[in-house]
Amino acid sequence: VTGPKFAVQRSIHARELLATVRDAWIDSTSANGEPYLIPLTYQWDGTSMFFSTPEKSRTGRDFRRNPTTRASLPSTRDVVILDGSIRFHDPAQIVSRIDAFVAQHEWDPRLEPNRFASFTFTPGQVQAWAIASELPTLVVMRDGVWLDGSGQPQ
Amino acid sequence: VTGPKFAVQRSIHARELLATVRDAWIDSTSANGEPYLIPLTYQWDGTSMFFSTPEKSRTGRDFRRNPTTRASLPSTRDVVILDGSIRFHDPAQIVSRIDAFVAQHEWDPRLEPNRFASFTFTPGQVQAWAIASELPTLVVMRDGVWLDGSGQPQ
Repeated sequence: VTGPKFAVQRSIHARELLATVRDAWIDSTSANGEPYLIPLTYQWDGTSMFFSTPEKSRTGRDFRRNPTTRASLPSTRDVVILDGSIRFHDPAQIVSRIDAFVAQHEWDPRLEPNRFASFTFTPGQVQAWAIASELPTLVVMRDGVWLDGSGQPQ
Repeated sequence: VTGPKFAVQRSIHARELLATVRDAWIDSTSANGEPYLIPLTYQWDGTSMFFSTPEKSRTGRDFRRNPTTRASLPSTRDVVILDGSIRFHDPAQIVSRIDAFVAQHEWDPRLEPNRFASFTFTPGQVQAWAIASELPTLVVMRDGVWLDGSGQPQ
């Protein structure tokens, strides 16, 4: 279950999961260096995850200070781990993206009484594997480019 | 779905999940402040999660430096989030605990060619909820004590 063919399948599978799974675990680090972790719903457009979380939440404040992080899809048996950077957006500038998020999740953060931050997480590296103890970690994206089975850009 | 009865059910359910789920997402912070996240298999004895990971792994090194962290069970729809502290152990002093881990996972870290660190993670606070957007976060353990439905120690 290794080699170029497997790597291509794993890369395709990772992108299928990103498009169909609804939530991710989002890591951040607080000002005092303590690790923090929460689940957030996302909308995937093929390049980035869109999130909305209260501006004053710990994750929102952590990302204002350090916009680099790691996220993962929930499964620990069919793993997709993403390393990348956060970018905050003016909601008025990304109306169609928020609309896509609302359509997927049937929840509109713009209607919440408190102020929500809109941000995207764009992975630069994606690792994917089926079961931790059986397979080596496979890098299916590097420097923002999806790789083919020989580790070269597709 | 709130109130004392619900809180007791949620607390019982969280402990059932801890006893039956096999892996957790483990958060740590590297020396330069970057967040890190990996899945690790664990063995739960009712009080702590036992883990084994390579001594030189990033997680192993992070915990030697900062033994306080957050862990979560995989599901983002039936959430159990644990905050607590890490303690490293001499494998010779916790043989029965490692044996319980080996029996559960059919993998013995003592047989690995590289050196594995044995550590336990003892939560001091546990939060549990069913779906993030529907229910408020419920604290089912505080200061290491499981709470009853009125937020008092059981």
